[in-house]
Amino acid sequence: MSQASIPNRYSDVIERVKYQIRQKVWLPGERVPSIRKMSRLAKVSPATVTKAYELLEVEGWIYAKPQSGYYVAAHFNQLEPSSASGLPQVSNQAISINRHVFDVLKAIKQPDVIPFGSAFPDPVLFPVDELGRRLSRVIKSMPLNSGVTDLPPGCLELRRVIAQRYANEGLSVSADDIVITTGATEALGVSLAAVTQPGDTVVIESPAFYGALQAIERFHLKAIELPLGDGGGVDIDALANIVEQHDVKACWFMSKFQNPSATTMTIEQLTLIYQLLAAKQIPLIEDDVYSELYFGSDKPPSFKSIDEHGLVLHCSSFSKCLAPGFRVGWVLAGRFSKQVEELQFMSTLSVAVPNQQTLAAFVKAGGYDNHLRQLRRVLEKRVSATMTAIQNDFPAGTTVTMPEGGYFLWVTLPIEIDTSKLLEQLLGQYRISVAPGTLFASSRQFKHCMRLNASFELNDEKRKALKQLGDILHRAKKGCER
Amino acid sequence: MSQASIPNRYSDVIERVKYQIRQKVWLPGERVPSIRKMSRLAKVSPATVTKAYELLEVEGWIYAKPQSGYYVAAHFNQLEPSSASGLPQVSNQAISINRHVFDVLKAIKQPDVIPFGSAFPDPVLFPVDELGRRLSRVIKSMPLNSGVTDLPPGCLELRRVIAQRYANEGLSVSADDIVITTGATEALGVSLAAVTQPGDTVVIESPAFYGALQAIERFHLKAIELPLGDGGGVDIDALANIVEQHDVKACWFMSKFQNPSATTMTIEQLTLIYQLLAAKQIPLIEDDVYSELYFGSDKPPSFKSIDEHGLVLHCSSFSKCLAPGFRVGWVLAGRFSKQVEELQFMSTLSVAVPNQQTLAAFVKAGGYDNHLRQLRRVLEKRVSATMTAIQNDFPAGTTVTMPEGGYFLWVTLPIEIDTSKLLEQLLGQYRISVAPGTLFASSRQFKHCMRLNASFELNDEKRKALKQLGDILHRAKKGCER
Repeated sequence: MSQASIPNRYSDVIERVKYQIRQKVWLPGERVPSIRKMSRLAKVSPATVTKAYELLEVEGWIYAKPQSGYYVAAHFNQLEPSSASGLPQVSNQAISINRHVFDVLKAIKQPDVIPFGSAFPDPVLFPVDELGRRLSRVIKSMPLNSGVTDLPPGCLELRRVIAQRYANEGLSVSADDIVITTGATEALGVSLAAVTQPGDTVVIESPAFYGALQAIERFHLKAIELPLGDGGGVDIDALANIVEQHDVKACWFMSKFQNPSATTMTIEQLTLIYQLLAAKQIPLIEDDVYSELYFGSDKPPSFKSIDEHGLVLHCSSFSKCLAPGFRVGWVLAGRFSKQVEELQFMSTLSVAVPNQQTLAAFVKAGGYDNHLRQLRRVLEKRVSATMTAIQNDFPAGTTVTMPEGGYFLWVTLPIEIDTSKLLEQLLGQYRISVAPGTLFASSRQFKHCMRLNASFELNDEKRKALKQLGDILHRAKKGCER
Repeated sequence: MSQASIPNRYSDVIERVKYQIRQKVWLPGERVPSIRKMSRLAKVSPATVTKAYELLEVEGWIYAKPQSGYYVAAHFNQLEPSSASGLPQVSNQAISINRHVFDVLKAIKQPDVIPFGSAFPDPVLFPVDELGRRLSRVIKSMPLNSGVTDLPPGCLELRRVIAQRYANEGLSVSADDIVITTGATEALGVSLAAVTQPGDTVVIESPAFYGALQAIERFHLKAIELPLGDGGGVDIDALANIVEQHDVKACWFMSKFQNPSATTMTIEQLTLIYQLLAAKQIPLIEDDVYSELYFGSDKPPSFKSIDEHGLVLHCSSFSKCLAPGFRVGWVLAGRFSKQVEELQFMSTLSVAVPNQQTLAAFVKAGGYDNHLRQLRRVLEKRVSATMTAIQNDFPAGTTVTMPEGGYFLWVTLPIEIDTSKLLEQLLGQYRISVAPGTLFASSRQFKHCMRLNASFELNDEKRKALKQLGDILHRAKKGCER
């Protein structure tokens, strides 16, 4: 039906303007040629130019001032991959999923592949037998109409125990504020959908959890990727600029043990960021799935803990700390609770009922905190051992920072190494998976990085695999291999 | 950022054209004023008219012919609510969710409300104890890495037993063609997302399952609602016109025991519809969640059974026939398998693992067909008893047709009754829920209809409730009550 438009004509205008902006013909803040002038220059109708300019505006290249014209939007120079200084890379763009994510996932399904690339913690760490016993007890005693009563927002008992855990952290939360979801993946997805419309702009961290990039593609949004500082936390000045210059509809951040960088924001950083967003009433999706896995004496603060205005959609789950495979997560969605509840209903109707009730029973019975204390101790030991092995085996110039929690190590290798290019050989020949840095950004700027899962015991097999990985990286650095 | 446009000006043009089309100033196929002419008439710039016309085109009011101009798109007269003849209502529009859906759902959660409005079958009909026993056995013997191996497309054993069941119906399906989902709700959602982009047009039935209307809103699509004929099945001539005149990106149909109308398409209807869609390569999402609940000797055919071109995304689940609350469904997605698998991964990461494995074990053990035979027999008896009660108790002019399967009765009441207006009183005063016809279309054309869940045994309480419902309808008809 839309045979009317003549796509070549207005895409010519678009490409012309983009080229000129890239070539710094027009700098940020400068006015681009008027519609009338561009119409003459490009030999197309004013309507065509108008359409082109509107699309350029939607893409964030230019913006309109009423009664004045179109101006180049603020944008920053491309960050050099290894440069810690320099201005952050900011481009406001649609995301196209890196297909490597699916390759890495397919690989970790094969039992003979060493799962350093996996996002899942070592399954031996969880009380599977105890959960099984509870599950069978729950099924026998479950009221027949649970399928109906546990519809969104979810099983009341489970929402109550979650609210109690928030209360123990000093957060006053009612069970009514919590929406149970099919894992944190759904929690994050429905949260994002609750606060955006297709075409909207969302700020994410760079590097970011690939799930954030995927969700942004899935909901037809645009991402601004904001670099993380060395010590963790996003660049606050850059964020201030972005929220001034772009119509940001949401941010999606991980305040602690960030996936993949393993960094944690300080309370000062959290506060500054929150104030910035609160001033513009920008919702903040907080992915806090690793929150229980802290190595220190206390849980680091979250954005939710300082959320005076109900702007934070706090997403978490039991998948990383108690019951992987049960697919039970939740959102504490502040002022967006109603939308989140309705979207969860539309997304999967309800969360598996026996699974919800089993987790409620497990947490109520009181063994949960004991399990968590043990889990944290084991993870800290394993993460530390894996770091030591990396320091021994990997090429000079490699950096890794000991995280404050979780089980990921973010390994920055010498700049000449491209982990995404090594992936095929690693998987095919050595049966070792890693998560190459290219999974975590829309550009290739982290190609010399990789995320390693350090939740596994470094037994002989894993120790040998790390050594092999080190050898391959040494060779890659020397250029002996492509 | 988009302060540029002057919305009033081009919405003036839009309203002017819509008004003229409604008033039949311009009939379908006639040319609307040229951009230049409208620019003079409406005293706005040609660019503004162009934008207005483009939006009108997107909304399906007009269409462009290259080098010629804009023409009024074919559209049909509004179907009179009670008229069985006449041309179908077709409007191509964004959907806004009817909030009554959530009221009805909230109501059925209360144990003292009679759940005639529920979509869930009576929970006593399912082998809960047996499922519980299997679940506890599965958990004990489940390989530790199941959380990883059962990632999308899902548990291989479960996909195998589902493929075997298709094979027993004469359909050659590989386990690799099946993607396990968190119930049919997710199956349908990811299927729709796999074949559309925001703004696209999807054809649904009218009345339609409210989940279809919700999914269309959630993914920012537009719906064309195509009336069902008296005997079931969509109006094929109307569908032919629609696919000629609109850029239809997908259809979403229920071929059997349609929710809510309880109608079933014949193989001739299926074939004609499929041929029409195949000629244009339009994907067909087939919601077949009630497929196992047939009352006849054989399962009626599905679109999938005649899908030569891989265009059908066949969605089903175990929620209506074996294990409500387990949240396990699937898609057999034809040529769209890869997209569906990736979207499922992004939507909820994976389906609850013990639940997948328990259903695989249950079906493999061989008790499933026995359970289904029993279930069908009980449902047929209950549906029939409920119909008899309705015939006795409801006002003259009420029509209900005995369905060929499932457990819904679609009750068409005298035209003066508005079930949506009775809902509050029914729920508040009488504690009876029904699903008013207004849940199943974007317009109010089915306001004199309601869907009743007939899966419950007509014990004294339910019998009495039906009688009360009948009394209320009698009074509503007489106008004694508002």
